[in-house]
Amino acid sequence: MTDHGTIRVDVDGEIGVVTLTNPARRNALSRAMMLAITEAFRSFAERRTRVIVLRAEPDVSVWSAGHDITELPVPGRDPLGYGDPLEETLRAIRRYPGPVVAMVHGSVWGGAFDLVLSCDLVVADETATFAITPVNLGLPYNMTGLLHFIGRLRVNVVKELFFTAAPANAATALEWGIINHLTTSAELEAHTMALARRMASKAPLAMAAIKEQLHVLSDYQPVAAEVFERVQELRRSAFESADYREGVAAFLEKRPPAFRGE
Amino acid sequence: MTDHGTIRVDVDGEIGVVTLTNPARRNALSRAMMLAITEAFRSFAERRTRVIVLRAEPDVSVWSAGHDITELPVPGRDPLGYGDPLEETLRAIRRYPGPVVAMVHGSVWGGAFDLVLSCDLVVADETATFAITPVNLGLPYNMTGLLHFIGRLRVNVVKELFFTAAPANAATALEWGIINHLTTSAELEAHTMALARRMASKAPLAMAAIKEQLHVLSDYQPVAAEVFERVQELRRSAFESADYREGVAAFLEKRPPAFRGE
Amino acid sequence: MTDHGTIRVDVDGEIGVVTLTNPARRNALSRAMMLAITEAFRSFAERRTRVIVLRAEPDVSVWSAGHDITELPVPGRDPLGYGDPLEETLRAIRRYPGPVVAMVHGSVWGGAFDLVLSCDLVVADETATFAITPVNLGLPYNMTGLLHFIGRLRVNVVKELFFTAAPANAATALEWGIINHLTTSAELEAHTMALARRMASKAPLAMAAIKEQLHVLSDYQPVAAEVFERVQELRRSAFESADYREGVAAFLEKRPPAFRGE
Amino acid sequence: MTDHGTIRVDVDGEIGVVTLTNPARRNALSRAMMLAITEAFRSFAERRTRVIVLRAEPDVSVWSAGHDITELPVPGRDPLGYGDPLEETLRAIRRYPGPVVAMVHGSVWGGAFDLVLSCDLVVADETATFAITPVNLGLPYNMTGLLHFIGRLRVNVVKELFFTAAPANAATALEWGIINHLTTSAELEAHTMALARRMASKAPLAMAAIKEQLHVLSDYQPVAAEVFERVQELRRSAFESADYREGVAAFLEKRPPAFRGE
Amino acid sequence: MTDHGTIRVDVDGEIGVVTLTNPARRNALSRAMMLAITEAFRSFAERRTRVIVLRAEPDVSVWSAGHDITELPVPGRDPLGYGDPLEETLRAIRRYPGPVVAMVHGSVWGGAFDLVLSCDLVVADETATFAITPVNLGLPYNMTGLLHFIGRLRVNVVKELFFTAAPANAATALEWGIINHLTTSAELEAHTMALARRMASKAPLAMAAIKEQLHVLSDYQPVAAEVFERVQELRRSAFESADYREGVAAFLEKRPPAFRGE
Amino acid sequence: MTDHGTIRVDVDGEIGVVTLTNPARRNALSRAMMLAITEAFRSFAERRTRVIVLRAEPDVSVWSAGHDITELPVPGRDPLGYGDPLEETLRAIRRYPGPVVAMVHGSVWGGAFDLVLSCDLVVADETATFAITPVNLGLPYNMTGLLHFIGRLRVNVVKELFFTAAPANAATALEWGIINHLTTSAELEAHTMALARRMASKAPLAMAAIKEQLHVLSDYQPVAAEVFERVQELRRSAFESADYREGVAAFLEKRPPAFRGE
Ligand code: NI
Ligand code: NI
Ligand code: NI
Repeated sequence: MTDHGTIRVDVDGEIGVVTLTNPARRNALSRAMMLAITEAFRSFAERRTRVIVLRAEPDVSVWSAGHDITELPVPGRDPLGYGDPLEETLRAIRRYPGPVVAMVHGSVWGGAFDLVLSCDLVVADETATFAITPVNLGLPYNMTGLLHFIGRLRVNVVKELFFTAAPANAATALEWGIINHLTTSAELEAHTMALARRMASKAPLAMAAIKEQLHVLSDYQPVAAEVFERVQELRRSAFESADYREGVAAFLEKRPPAFRGE
Repeated sequence: MTDHGTIRVDVDGEIGVVTLTNPARRNALSRAMMLAITEAFRSFAERRTRVIVLRAEPDVSVWSAGHDITELPVPGRDPLGYGDPLEETLRAIRRYPGPVVAMVHGSVWGGAFDLVLSCDLVVADETATFAITPVNLGLPYNMTGLLHFIGRLRVNVVKELFFTAAPANAATALEWGIINHLTTSAELEAHTMALARRMASKAPLAMAAIKEQLHVLSDYQPVAAEVFERVQELRRSAFESADYREGVAAFLEKRPPAFRGE
Repeated sequence: MTDHGTIRVDVDGEIGVVTLTNPARRNALSRAMMLAITEAFRSFAERRTRVIVLRAEPDVSVWSAGHDITELPVPGRDPLGYGDPLEETLRAIRRYPGPVVAMVHGSVWGGAFDLVLSCDLVVADETATFAITPVNLGLPYNMTGLLHFIGRLRVNVVKELFFTAAPANAATALEWGIINHLTTSAELEAHTMALARRMASKAPLAMAAIKEQLHVLSDYQPVAAEVFERVQELRRSAFESADYREGVAAFLEKRPPAFRGE
Repeated sequence: MTDHGTIRVDVDGEIGVVTLTNPARRNALSRAMMLAITEAFRSFAERRTRVIVLRAEPDVSVWSAGHDITELPVPGRDPLGYGDPLEETLRAIRRYPGPVVAMVHGSVWGGAFDLVLSCDLVVADETATFAITPVNLGLPYNMTGLLHFIGRLRVNVVKELFFTAAPANAATALEWGIINHLTTSAELEAHTMALARRMASKAPLAMAAIKEQLHVLSDYQPVAAEVFERVQELRRSAFESADYREGVAAFLEKRPPAFRGE
Repeated sequence: MTDHGTIRVDVDGEIGVVTLTNPARRNALSRAMMLAITEAFRSFAERRTRVIVLRAEPDVSVWSAGHDITELPVPGRDPLGYGDPLEETLRAIRRYPGPVVAMVHGSVWGGAFDLVLSCDLVVADETATFAITPVNLGLPYNMTGLLHFIGRLRVNVVKELFFTAAPANAATALEWGIINHLTTSAELEAHTMALARRMASKAPLAMAAIKEQLHVLSDYQPVAAEVFERVQELRRSAFESADYREGVAAFLEKRPPAFRGE
Repeated sequence: MTDHGTIRVDVDGEIGVVTLTNPARRNALSRAMMLAITEAFRSFAERRTRVIVLRAEPDVSVWSAGHDITELPVPGRDPLGYGDPLEETLRAIRRYPGPVVAMVHGSVWGGAFDLVLSCDLVVADETATFAITPVNLGLPYNMTGLLHFIGRLRVNVVKELFFTAAPANAATALEWGIINHLTTSAELEAHTMALARRMASKAPLAMAAIKEQLHVLSDYQPVAAEVFERVQELRRSAFESADYREGVAAFLEKRPPAFRGE
């Protein structure tokens, strides 16, 4: 067991466990936490740990509150660049050569929802809720992030989640396919670890080849370069806008934002 | 409020409403109606209307009967060309820089199903039914139209809908993901407008960037040019066939068609 | 009716029926059986049979046990090459110019699951179960095979099926979308044949054009050549591994395998 | 040696030779001639003939005049569909599992230029000229045809050829890369046959794998379905236009066309 | 004839001529000039002008000096966004439904080289030189811009041009395929206008369909979304760098830059 | 300066030089040499060396003889897998974040030709010749390797080179675009180093972004998964063939091979 400030890393036989341990900040996805998770996955890969579980501590009400808003870049700079620490963590999970299971108790907000969907399987209990909130801030989500959602959920569900920013509760999440298994809070850990152990007994090289192929087929969707640049301009017009400034300010001042489309 | 013959256009604050108003023709998707809808969306875009609702009048039994069969081109000409008015309407909805909600009471047939699926979200009541019927006519559906279906529904569901031409009722439509919310007839309008108002309060530039990215990721699937031409030949053999003539004739004569595969 | 050793072929009006008839080998997908099915489809296509049903005999407990393990190539050779007979059968079904319906009673294992998903629609009764088991053998599934799964099922369901190799029962299969209709055993055949007859009455040229377009949109996903070669190397490292040898040996010796990731 | 009316087929050891033998019609690419060539390639493939030479008879002034204008379909029908006999011949050459060499003496017009570029190598003498003339007729060339040109020539050269319809002489053709080798008329046949013999001595399976990979990399460029349908509409507006009628009429009446862009 | 400050627009029958008329600023591609050119193309399209010639005034030594460096955005903002006026002009030319011919006398620098390559054909005289200079400034060129170069020139030539920033003279430009025709200064205008007139007599709808298809096949190359975002990050690290600041400063101070890779 | 057995590595200011130093084996691309080159590039990248020159020692008659035939895998195993050391070296060069210049004196055979084309620019003297020889061995070249050729050379030239296995001399190589500059032997080194120094003075971050974008646009061409597997089967039929065995045997026995297409 190793404590890394914002996360704790345990290894239980073939299974690695990453626990988010920053409840004071509601497990916000700070740069520090993201670098620690990415490093944990690098280290698991070296030790050839077969299955990884990503979880929060028991009994928290918030699994993770998502982006650390205080760390968002100044308006005018793309807040979701490829090199940003959260993006690196998402890729570390998606490219990990073995299954990664998210174990969810409590609410999952914003970028943390992307983090959960980037895991291969999701086990959750009845306290779990999921919301994706960039339209509350005026933050234009990015192409790969949206691909993570439409690779996992029906597109009309994705649109409802993104356009309303409303949370889905555990039952809805099961129905929509956000989660694989819904358990009671009491059974959550046991159920998750049993699933992990079952997968850890299977042929790891075949598993790695299958996961990587699914990753390629889901995440590498080609888009014409011109289309991409057009969309990036739309995104730029949003992250350079007064609305984005207003959205972040309103969030920090805990008041509703007033957007004007400018 | 403006009456355009086949449709009525209202604006309620940030929300635009397009109502199909041609029950005498069972709201068939005539060229006139399609041009009017496309124009309405152009005008909403200019006024930066944030959310659009597309609906029929209350208490109709048919939301829309789909293509106006009397306007289908003569056999030998592609009945689903890019420039045809319905195709332009579908693109106007898909490219609109804000959410479009279909509000459905009654039955939805043929091209009207494509119209509904082209909306971002669908709210329907228990009278709603959905059928896609080109195999009753011998009409070879087109690539982008099929992409609209497989971008929204599981492919085995799409095949069942297309190959049987059987209607799905409201409960099945919910289960299959055709609709986001199923309400009672009494609550349909209030539910839909509440959803629209919620979305209208969110950051519009971020919304537009997200919608356009989802559009690109769903609708721009690349296909090799040679494959496309091969498929277009298959489609041509259908729209030049005796069966297509028979299908249209049988429909207009209200008798079952006798297809011979020629 | 024609008996081909491992299968029987019947034609009932516009409907062709292929029945797996090798219960002694639990309908394993041997080269002989695959060549016979591919030939049956070629012959149906010549006769322009409109709809095909693929089924096992009534009352078997195993619909098909999947690959015939005794026919897998020696380690070092790709066990899932494009030219292998099962792959040819899958393509014969996917390219057939009319609907193919799988009618499932009993359990479906490994490659037989791919066979069922390659049919356009699936009707099953309450005895049906579905498992995909390459991680029990250490066999690295291939790109098109995985595409067959993610074209039909949510990717987190695909991952659960592949990474656990656990069977899904009929109710779960319905919920996950593996099957279109769940019936009682008593009604299975009648329900399936009624569905087939309905489809056989529709316009066949339009049907063929629609099916081929759906095939292209589902199965021809482009991948960068370099990415493909990278993934093929991952697959090679698995099919050249000691684990693959161990997986096959353990299966034949009916003992659990001990994988070491080498 | 076999005479097929419009062509003659010879086999010289490992080398097959197809000779265009319809000088009375200036070797126009009639349906009859195209079907004969396609059949010749099918037959060579069965006999595993290693290298094919495509040529006209010695001393003709026109190698081929291109499309047989009298066989073009009525306006309103796509004149360059996937199933048209010339298109099938082009694919038979491009997919032939061994090198195909065009041996050119005299002028090459319209579709015959596409035929020559579809050969793997081109040997020509100083009488050779090459012109691509659809803008003289108002005929909208198709996607795969244009791909054949831009896969072989610089795009500004392709545009000059298509937009001016001017012939390139042999020296220019060499400089632009239309031809691999420029010889004297006296040496043309000896040079071509020596090249063919050299290639016939190489490993045929490796050759076939290399040619097919080059074919895939050159000819299967993916285009978004929506873009393809948009372009097909542009093409339709041309082949349904008065200009196309005018272009064909003017050609047959041997007068300059008067195009009005309608 | 209309004078728009930085450009002059003439129409000569079916041929439109845009002349760059800002020699005092060496025809730098200022926002004002770009908006004027884009507007000119919009207006030509309305009048259905068949062929456009883009030229500078006779006897200038600099055809265009490229980007107006004083208008480059502050470091940190992408200097080559989709919505920037030069990018819009490039697209206006590439999408124009008729041939556009660049007529070049004098030197062509930086973005003006992209402008010339975006024309369909290039006629130049012996004073013409071409250089592409972003590595002198530290400016990371964008994907579509690079696509314009590799769609027209061999990639090792593109690399030599970009990595050395050295000018190619007229003879080299001809050899490399930058230009279609090299004439004397005396004949430049007559040669260009004769070429334009020839193209103006051809069928315009067929021409438009051919040009648009070539545009799609050249410019819409698909790239995986994740790869695009990775590359955009590389570009961001350059346009946020001290080197970019240094490059621009050195240019304005007319001294050699000292780059440190930071 | 460091001597690594088969190569020598020098650093001259901003310029790194890799010299092949195994003339006894005619600089065959052995695993040892490839690992050393890959390692050299890794080390250059760490030191941020701006430009790399890849060369042989002066006055050798063979720059490199290509694959070390004695190290080719046994028949049945893909001889050109993604993980093979030569493939890794090719990628190390293509992904290096600065220009790589091949400096060529003497003949370049087989895989060494791919190595030279993988460099960004090529400077050669009049002794240089280039041949690509897999059809002499029966070795089926791979997709990315062919992409390296068609990304650099006209496809009819690529076919002539591959199908004849004949060497191109220096003048032809210049004309075909294999090389950027042709110099005398006396000036080769000075000319190359001057070119390298010029590029080393330019902005390195912009250079890296430009090179990587060109790499992506050239090398990541998407191919449908099914097409890739089909082509891989064609390649397998070649590397499992008797002809491949014969080709390798004949090479080692220095006699002409007798291929039978089996
Ligand atoms: Ni609701
Ligand atoms: Ni049923
Ligand atoms: Ni030089």
